[in-house]
Amino acid sequence: MRDIMSVIARPEVISLAGGLPDTSSFPPETFAAVTARIAEESCARALQYGPTEGLVETKRCIAEVMAAEGMAPDLDDMIVTTGGQQVLDLVTKALIDPGDVIIAEGPTYPGAVPVFHAYQADVVQIDMDTDGMRVDLLEEALDRLDREGRRPKFVYTVPSFQNPAGVTMSLPRRRRLIEVVRERELLVLEDNPYGLLRYEGEPPPPLYKLDGGAYVMYLGTFSKILSPGIRLGWVVAPAPVLEKINLGKQAADLCTSTLSQLMVQAYFELETWRDYVHSLTEIYRARRDAMLVALAECFPPQARWTRPAGGLFIWATLPGFIDTTDLLARALRENVAFVPGEGAFLDGRGRDSMRLNFSGSGEDQIREGIRRIGEVIKEQVTLYGTLTGEAEPAAEAAQTPATPEERARVVKLPRRGAAGRRADGA
Amino acid sequence: MRDIMSVIARPEVISLAGGLPDTSSFPPETFAAVTARIAEESCARALQYGPTEGLVETKRCIAEVMAAEGMAPDLDDMIVTTGGQQVLDLVTKALIDPGDVIIAEGPTYPGAVPVFHAYQADVVQIDMDTDGMRVDLLEEALDRLDREGRRPKFVYTVPSFQNPAGVTMSLPRRRRLIEVVRERELLVLEDNPYGLLRYEGEPPPPLYKLDGGAYVMYLGTFSKILSPGIRLGWVVAPAPVLEKINLGKQAADLCTSTLSQLMVQAYFELETWRDYVHSLTEIYRARRDAMLVALAECFPPQARWTRPAGGLFIWATLPGFIDTTDLLARALRENVAFVPGEGAFLDGRGRDSMRLNFSGSGEDQIREGIRRIGEVIKEQVTLYGTLTGEAEPAAEAAQTPATPEERARVVKLPRRGAAGRRADGA
Repeated sequence: MRDIMSVIARPEVISLAGGLPDTSSFPPETFAAVTARIAEESCARALQYGPTEGLVETKRCIAEVMAAEGMAPDLDDMIVTTGGQQVLDLVTKALIDPGDVIIAEGPTYPGAVPVFHAYQADVVQIDMDTDGMRVDLLEEALDRLDREGRRPKFVYTVPSFQNPAGVTMSLPRRRRLIEVVRERELLVLEDNPYGLLRYEGEPPPPLYKLDGGAYVMYLGTFSKILSPGIRLGWVVAPAPVLEKINLGKQAADLCTSTLSQLMVQAYFELETWRDYVHSLTEIYRARRDAMLVALAECFPPQARWTRPAGGLFIWATLPGFIDTTDLLARALRENVAFVPGEGAFLDGRGRDSMRLNFSGSGEDQIREGIRRIGEVIKEQVTLYGTLTGEAEPAAEAAQTPATPEERARVVKLPRRGAAGRRADGA
Repeated sequence: MRDIMSVIARPEVISLAGGLPDTSSFPPETFAAVTARIAEESCARALQYGPTEGLVETKRCIAEVMAAEGMAPDLDDMIVTTGGQQVLDLVTKALIDPGDVIIAEGPTYPGAVPVFHAYQADVVQIDMDTDGMRVDLLEEALDRLDREGRRPKFVYTVPSFQNPAGVTMSLPRRRRLIEVVRERELLVLEDNPYGLLRYEGEPPPPLYKLDGGAYVMYLGTFSKILSPGIRLGWVVAPAPVLEKINLGKQAADLCTSTLSQLMVQAYFELETWRDYVHSLTEIYRARRDAMLVALAECFPPQARWTRPAGGLFIWATLPGFIDTTDLLARALRENVAFVPGEGAFLDGRGRDSMRLNFSGSGEDQIREGIRRIGEVIKEQVTLYGTLTGEAEPAAEAAQTPATPEERARVVKLPRRGAAGRRADGA
């Protein structure tokens, strides 16, 4: 990934690979007002160490964000972290010994994969469909593990606008998931960075709200509603887990940036944060729509992709003979980038899929980026047809006469396969 | 420690326990100028993700700081981190498997202890004297380990104004240490947060300078020369280690705060950072002196302490019948706090010692704080005399007629004892 990153950093490259919010939409005058206020009122404090668990002022802002999705956490159950990524690291460090089982979605957040690897977790990935994680398959997996005498340490899920799949867990699935973890007394880590970035439809309640915080730990972040550059996230968890997370955080980086925490406090006092989030949803909805139209126009008929109702990502699946990791090398020569699907699995699946980001690029760039990716895909499809002598793609397409709108609603997520293999810790 | 922290947070408590710089001395108008410039020129960038290894602009500031101590690192050998603490965590994560040996000073930085514990390192602590780590004892320990077929993964040292002992490794010791690690091909992690905070005398060169970066990894931080609240540190290391640190950092928190990094860049462009560091040395020298005088006045004659030429800490050692962890409970009732010595050891030593911080409190507070600690010590000394019927402390004192100045120059660091016990990972 990081080698790719240096290529992507070139200005001529259209990157649909990252998960970057559009920070250029944040008003510089607001930034100036917020920092001027800190300079005047709390400069020495902003520059000083703070408590490991975070400032209570910042926790109040976090409670406000969570209240916007119907949650009412106790501030004492919360730790402010160096971004949401640190929550993944600290929760995994707190709960996992080598060989312990984590349940995750398949595909799962690519940034969680190296964390789970590092602590040598045995990750079992559960397939998804357009309604999110298949809880029936989760139960099968839990039964199988139970027969092996193994008990997962936690279930990791991004229920809303999943990274990378873009799908959202339906309310019945959420209810059933909570029933299952209550019955079996399992912890859940709900990762919800995008919940407020909804472009259509009514939001289902977060798992944390349904459960009340008994079994569900909650991961939140300011990265997608304000700024990732201030590295500010949080975790809400039951006291025994929180205690371990606190000890881990002390060892990891002592405390979260006081400057960033006071920035959030000062910003929230302006009471414009909801307006800013609303402005982001307007921008991102248009970009998502631009990407969906471009995909229908430029990707070959065998391709399928998700239609996210929010968040930052579309997940596209190509004909099985295309390896998206190889495809990326070709795409980079055309100055366009995406995340190959295999990065979202710990078991080698996902090689026919890709994650496409629509928040970090303008609509014109998105159209041009998808056009370029479509070209390299078509080259591969044509090459495959020539080599194998199989029917022209066009002929295949004729047999699936979906409209672009219908095609965009078809999700092709990976079938259940080699799930449950041990992460090798490499 | 964290339970103590909530007591210390009470305003009536004089805390000599922390390692807090005096951020109230930083000019708010400078903070305002720096942030106003970011608002104007680089707001969107400050709010965005950055590269895992850090911004090159920030690395140039780091090179300037290191140049002030005679070092010339390659920017490609450097990673910007979330404070110096993260370097400890990432280096240990990169190099240590459970049971691997780390060599450290005895006492060592209390914040390193939970890190070494977490990765289940077997920490061998080498005694110090007024010239820093006893390199002769290091060689003995290395020979012993060698006979056991064990090879330390790295030597961790704070050579200048050590935390917590306050002593500085002499130039001959530094030269010998570099010879030893070259002969034996051992890595060193040089932790140098305070090198520029010197109150008297000429600085010996950093180990990194003597070695040129072949075996010495370097940990630096802006915490003590600018601000700990921005959580900005760095590591310089050989490429194979750096690569592992980079992967670890990606998993830990993706990247270091871009806001903090651009703050440093904008601040360094004002070219006043050296003046600010100089102003800090003036403030801290006076506080150190106030503490040394108060110790001579208020601590019983059997007590000994170090006389640091820089940094933030004095290490005091009391009669062996006093347990400083118990003493802290009594001190907190008198509204004064320190760090008990046992936190600086992984093997149970240090119970007769304490770390005293002089950077975070004003001179009057320091005098009053030392007076209060002296009172609770004297109570213990009197109680011990009454219970055992031994000679009054005053009689003992008569046998060691040192002047306050001489006493302050006597270092009593713990004798070599149970060093080399395995960290239990708890």
